[in-house]
Amino acid sequence: MTDRLAAQFAFLNESDRLKSVLRATTLVDGSRPENSGEHSWHLALYALVLADQAAPGVDINRVIRMLLIHDLVEIDVGDVPIHSANGQAHASAETMAAEARAADRIFGLLPNDLSGDLQALWEEFEAAQTPDAIFAKSLDRVQPVMANLMSGGGTWVAYDVSFNQLESRVGVKIAKGAPGLWDWIRVKAVSWFEIHA
Amino acid sequence: MTDRLAAQFAFLNESDRLKSVLRATTLVDGSRPENSGEHSWHLALYALVLADQAAPGVDINRVIRMLLIHDLVEIDVGDVPIHSANGQAHASAETMAAEARAADRIFGLLPNDLSGDLQALWEEFEAAQTPDAIFAKSLDRVQPVMANLMSGGGTWVAYDVSFNQLESRVGVKIAKGAPGLWDWIRVKAVSWFEIHA
Repeated sequence: MTDRLAAQFAFLNESDRLKSVLRATTLVDGSRPENSGEHSWHLALYALVLADQAAPGVDINRVIRMLLIHDLVEIDVGDVPIHSANGQAHASAETMAAEARAADRIFGLLPNDLSGDLQALWEEFEAAQTPDAIFAKSLDRVQPVMANLMSGGGTWVAYDVSFNQLESRVGVKIAKGAPGLWDWIRVKAVSWFEIHA
Repeated sequence: MTDRLAAQFAFLNESDRLKSVLRATTLVDGSRPENSGEHSWHLALYALVLADQAAPGVDINRVIRMLLIHDLVEIDVGDVPIHSANGQAHASAETMAAEARAADRIFGLLPNDLSGDLQALWEEFEAAQTPDAIFAKSLDRVQPVMANLMSGGGTWVAYDVSFNQLESRVGVKIAKGAPGLWDWIRVKAVSWFEIHA
């Protein structure tokens, strides 16, 4: 039991470092960059509150668990903003390989049973093939859209993003798991880009 | 649907402010105060990883949901550190009344069905009578103990806390929902206080 708890807390203490990983997106009030720990909390709350936007059969409890762990690899790799490098860096082979190594290291701190369960959940999220993962990805994509709308443009201004780029890089993925959500927020994004283009 | 989503996002955007509420406890590396948003994330991760410390029958998915929302009232009230005012402020009648008003306001932003569900979950956490709430409270108490051990004393130094005060204010509540967890971390806390007394 003692060794098991030591491994559980080694993971929980290492996870604390996610609070120091900064994202390109700011808080809703624009006051500072968001960190990936508080981002993960906000997304889990999104899942709790927007569960009615998920397809039938999506298990919101699994979605919440996925979102709680989805960014832990950033402790080693950092956040790769979706609009950086003209939208090419986020899902590059290099980034994905580095994230896989980070997952081995970080989930590997846990006792074997937990390590296997949580790494499989992270891999399911990354693969974005199951209904739970597709919905989780939609939430991960919609939250920065709302933050940008609230904070005056945020990463759209910082990376000189067009509405078409937003739709192709982000909107398509939101719509895949939560079409009603993209319909609703798309209207607001269109207005923003019309005013600020 | 549109009005419903507007209410859901009014709540989610208001919740963002929890990322700006600072706690007395620091990050594990001692670099800065922890905010209540990232704290809520870390606690949900604690529940996921330490589920085997819960009593039989505890529903970890409900515990995670509770922990995701447990501190939202601090948007209006702020964090009241457990060791402040010689341990008397945290559960004062004034604090509890202010938190109840905050819950009405913040959960009241949601559509009625969600508002009722989440406020009931928060009240269950606060009352700390059900097995799920008792376990959630244990995690909320043990995380700052670990942060203080890792960061060199933290709030124990700041508020000149003795081991007996730690045990009566915090340890008893950890032990109530997670006796194995308190047994394990108590040994480490005793050592810390012996060295630093």
